[in-house]
Order: sequence, then structure tokens, then C-alpha cells
Amino acid sequence: VDVKDKGLGEFGLIERFRRGVPSNDRVALGIGDDCASIRFTPGAEVLVTTDMLMEGRHFRPDDPLIEVGGKCLGVNLSDIAAMAGRPIAAVVAVALPKARAVEAGLALQEGIVAMAGRFGVALVGGDTNAWDGPLVVSITVFGEATDRGAVRRSGARPSDAVLVSGPLGGSLIGRHLRPEPRVREALALHQRLEIHAMIDLSDGLAGDLRQILQESGNLGAVLDADAVPIHPDAVAMSLVDHRSPLDHALSDGEDFELCFTVDPDDADRLLASPPAGVMVYLIGRIDEGPGLRLRHADGRVEPCDVRGFDHLSGGGA
Amino acid sequence: VDVKDKGLGEFGLIERFRRGVPSNDRVALGIGDDCASIRFTPGAEVLVTTDMLMEGRHFRPDDPLIEVGGKCLGVNLSDIAAMAGRPIAAVVAVALPKARAVEAGLALQEGIVAMAGRFGVALVGGDTNAWDGPLVVSITVFGEATDRGAVRRSGARPSDAVLVSGPLGGSLIGRHLRPEPRVREALALHQRLEIHAMIDLSDGLAGDLRQILQESGNLGAVLDADAVPIHPDAVAMSLVDHRSPLDHALSDGEDFELCFTVDPDDADRLLASPPAGVMVYLIGRIDEGPGLRLRHADGRVEPCDVRGFDHLSGGGA
Repeated sequence: VDVKDKGLGEFGLIERFRRGVPSNDRVALGIGDDCASIRFTPGAEVLVTTDMLMEGRHFRPDDPLIEVGGKCLGVNLSDIAAMAGRPIAAVVAVALPKARAVEAGLALQEGIVAMAGRFGVALVGGDTNAWDGPLVVSITVFGEATDRGAVRRSGARPSDAVLVSGPLGGSLIGRHLRPEPRVREALALHQRLEIHAMIDLSDGLAGDLRQILQESGNLGAVLDADAVPIHPDAVAMSLVDHRSPLDHALSDGEDFELCFTVDPDDADRLLASPPAGVMVYLIGRIDEGPGLRLRHADGRVEPCDVRGFDHLSGGGA
Repeated sequence: VDVKDKGLGEFGLIERFRRGVPSNDRVALGIGDDCASIRFTPGAEVLVTTDMLMEGRHFRPDDPLIEVGGKCLGVNLSDIAAMAGRPIAAVVAVALPKARAVEAGLALQEGIVAMAGRFGVALVGGDTNAWDGPLVVSITVFGEATDRGAVRRSGARPSDAVLVSGPLGGSLIGRHLRPEPRVREALALHQRLEIHAMIDLSDGLAGDLRQILQESGNLGAVLDADAVPIHPDAVAMSLVDHRSPLDHALSDGEDFELCFTVDPDDADRLLASPPAGVMVYLIGRIDEGPGLRLRHADGRVEPCDVRGFDHLSGGGA
């Protein structure tokens, strides 16, 4: 579908984008002016996050663009969840391949609108472009911290319990395109107890947990190898590439589960009675010896040397 | 410069980005966590705008990336100016060509940091990627409306005077890469008088003014052909392509001047004594007959049929 063939230039496509776009009571001014205008709760910390997905890098040319659109919003919502925030609004910038600009734009929008609707997020603006290059979509999301404040990566303390919100690994089989941002789960957990530090698992458990350790003053952690929840997709990949399911769980990334640390007593209470609909797995303990270590079933403790995904030098998704 | 040759992966480059990044007293949490956190003035309208620039589309492969970075932030600041807002913070997402990721990333950053510094804008987050495609940079800026409220496109009234803040046309010669966002000018004007409607000139005076007319309830305007201020670049281009300087001024776009409408009495006072450092040109009048018309020196009034720049079907900059 060529843009000119359809007689649908930028303004026509934008007009179609404007129809049926989700809004909410925070939007003072939506799509169509030089800026959007949003009302935040007076005094609340306003949270901002941005993610860009590129064709051939984060998704394949034959991946359904509905899923790509949903993923691009979803990974941003996952970042809001990682601060235990409430998402409120989003803006979307796209570079559409000229030869299929309208078709691609509408498919992306369908996925974005569906994900936005599920989380009550308003779409308040964007920038629509076409070019000869591959598809690029860049979304920025705004949210608010609750009155308990935003949960940082930097608040972990020695002896904290380390938990994750779901099974890990193997998302590249396809699950990575359908992230389930843990927004409600994070809010439910944060309301119940004080989360000391939290991150969403995008680059792999080992790499992401290292971010918490470093930001919290070069702490360390010991993970129980048997306690890390393994996703069936990690087992399936393991059968093909002969890397262990645990290795996949530690390093694959794009799980979009939460990894967080809490006081050990809080962890006990949480495991005994988690909030409705929230899964929690205790996987290890923060300590003062720097670095990440694995405790195996036989009691051996050794450094965990798997790396997280590096977006500049690593392979594409 | 290859990323691997320099031994500088994503985290290394991001670490370099973090150094020397401008901040301000609104930033509760800057680069390095899942989200940034910003404090806005309680009760203020928060303004949001996003723009994406693509290599080969909005800039040429040999354009200096320092200017490209500055432009990408500058066009967003120009959108904040168009609402008479104060810019506060920005996030930056980039797709860097792998073969020169570090070099390109640092040059872009230099331009972005310089522009941010001039306007007191904090850089609070981003998403850094490399790929085999051309360079893409996408910036989202947040600001606040003043307590007089954000100036919309939709507030023009019949008999309003139409003004612009500077000479127009021919920016493609090179000026388009060095936008001067009229942030201070808009604030000074808005403090002095009530601006009814405003837009920044990115797609060309004719197209952008039509946006004001449509959004204000399908009003019309008559522009005095002799009153439209012509930039020397429009004259220079005219010598080459034999289109009139006025045609360039009406249609070229990327001037990043303000076009606004005010009560005619306010316009008289403003022209008699503009705020310090602010240029204002009276170019025409809003009326009720729909559409944009031009009044020529001989008194003839005819429909103005030049089109603004269409980002999907038009030629690249």
C-alpha cells in the first residue's frame, strides 16, 4: 500500500490515528496541537521513560506489527512498573517504510491502542514520518509514583531477600513480542510492603540484578540455582542449543518480570500470602561481598559470569 | 570508529553520556534508573511534545551531527514555545549506525547538550541502540504552561491580527539545521498580552496558519503579500529555482518562527513597543470567510493555494 496511491498523506494518516485513540481524565489537550497537555497529581513524582524498537534489531521484518506496537508500549509500561508507578499517558514517534506506510502505521497503532486500553494509558501525541529505511517506533511514557514514592534500583540492603515475579528465560521464541508489564503487580506489592529496590528484567536476570547491586553501593548477591524459576521456553531453547535452562533464565532477557529486594521478614510474609494474582519467587539474598554468585544444589558457591544483553555490541533480537 | 574496537559497549557509551549532562532543580532522578523522575509545579499544565529526525529524510548523511542533535532538541523546544510554555526536561532515543556508533552518539550528544544548556533543559533519560540502518534520533520534551495557561492553536477569533516573529523562507539552504526556538520570545509576548492562538512554523506559513484556521472553527485569513517578512535565504533560493521569494516564505517550512493571533488593539500596542529582543511582523487578519487568501499590492485578493510540507508524501529535507 503506497501512501500516494491511497491518497492519504501525513494529515490523512494522523487523522485516522486520532480516531479511537484512548484518553483519560488526565488529558487536558490530546493529539493535534503543538504539544499535548497533561494534569498530574499535584506534588506527585512524575515518571518518564522512553524505548525505541528497530526492525531487524528488536523485531524481524515478518513479526506482526500489531505485536511490535504493543511491545513498544509494553516495555515502557514495564519500566513504569519497575518504579511501582501508575502509567498515565504516552507519545509515539514512528519512521514508517514508505512502500507500506499506511498499512504499517495502522497495524502498529492497533497494537499500541490495545495495550494502552488495557492499562488505562492515554495516547496524547506523536510524530509520523515515512522514509526508505526500515521501521522504527519510539514511545515515551509518563506516569506517577504513588504517595509511597518511586522505587529506585539503588535501595537494596545487605541481607535483603531477592525475589522475581515470574519464570524466566527463552522469551526469544516469541514471548518477547507479547510482554505483560507488571504494573498492577508492582502496585499491589508496593502497597503491601516496602520494596527496597526494583528493576524490570529486560537485559537478563544476571545483568539486571547487577544494576541493582552496583547502584546500591556495590553490594553482592547469592542466588540459589535451584530457586530461579525457569520458563518452559527456556527448557525448549535448551533442547536446541544445549545451553542449560538456568543459563537462559539468567541471561536471555526480555522477560519483563520484576526483580526486587525486600526485608527478609517481609519476604516470608509475602511468600506465605502473596497479593491476589501476583506470583513471587524467592531466589536469593543480598550481601556485602561484591558481585553476583550462584549457590548450586551441592552447596558450591561460584561467581556468576553470564553477561546481560548489550544493545550496542550484542546480537539482535 | 567501531563500537567493539573501542571496547565501548552500550554501558560504556551510556556512562559517557551521563557525564556532563545538564540537569536542573526539577530533576528528582536522572539517567540511570528504569524511569526518570521530575517535579512539576503543582497544578501546572504539563506540556509534552515529541519529534523524530531520520538520516536521508530530515538531514543529509554529511550534515554535522552536532547540528542534527541540536536541531532535534530545538524543534521540540519550538513546540513548547508555540504553547508559550517553559521547557524543563528531555529524553533522547537513538538508533546509531553500527559502524560509527560511538562517534555519532558523542557528536549528537554534544549538540543536544549545548542546546539543552542554552534553555536550561535537563536531559533525564534515553535509549541508546545501534543497528545496520541509518541514524534516527527521537526526542521528547516536557515543559509547563505558565499560570496564564497553554496557548492553543484553536483560539483565533475573527478580526484578530496575524503576526509572525521573524523572516521566513529558504531555510533548506542550511538554517533549518540551526533552529532558534522562540521560547523566551513566546514567554515575553504571553506575559505582555493575551495570545489567542499560536503555532510554530515548521511546515510553512500557509500550511501552519491553515491549522490555526481549521482548529479555530474553520475561520479564514487574508495575508498582505507585501507584509510577509522574507528571509534573505528565500531570495537566494529564488535566484536559483525562479520560484518567488514570497512562495518560499509561504511554503518552505522549518523556519521555527512563531505565528500567532491577537486582538487588533493589542497588535497595535505590540508593534509600537515590542518586548526587548522580540521581533514582530503584522502580516494579516483573521476573518470569517473560510480559507487562506492573499492580498496583493494592487488590491487583488486571491486564494492562497500553496501547500505546506507533507512529511509522508513530500520530498526529504
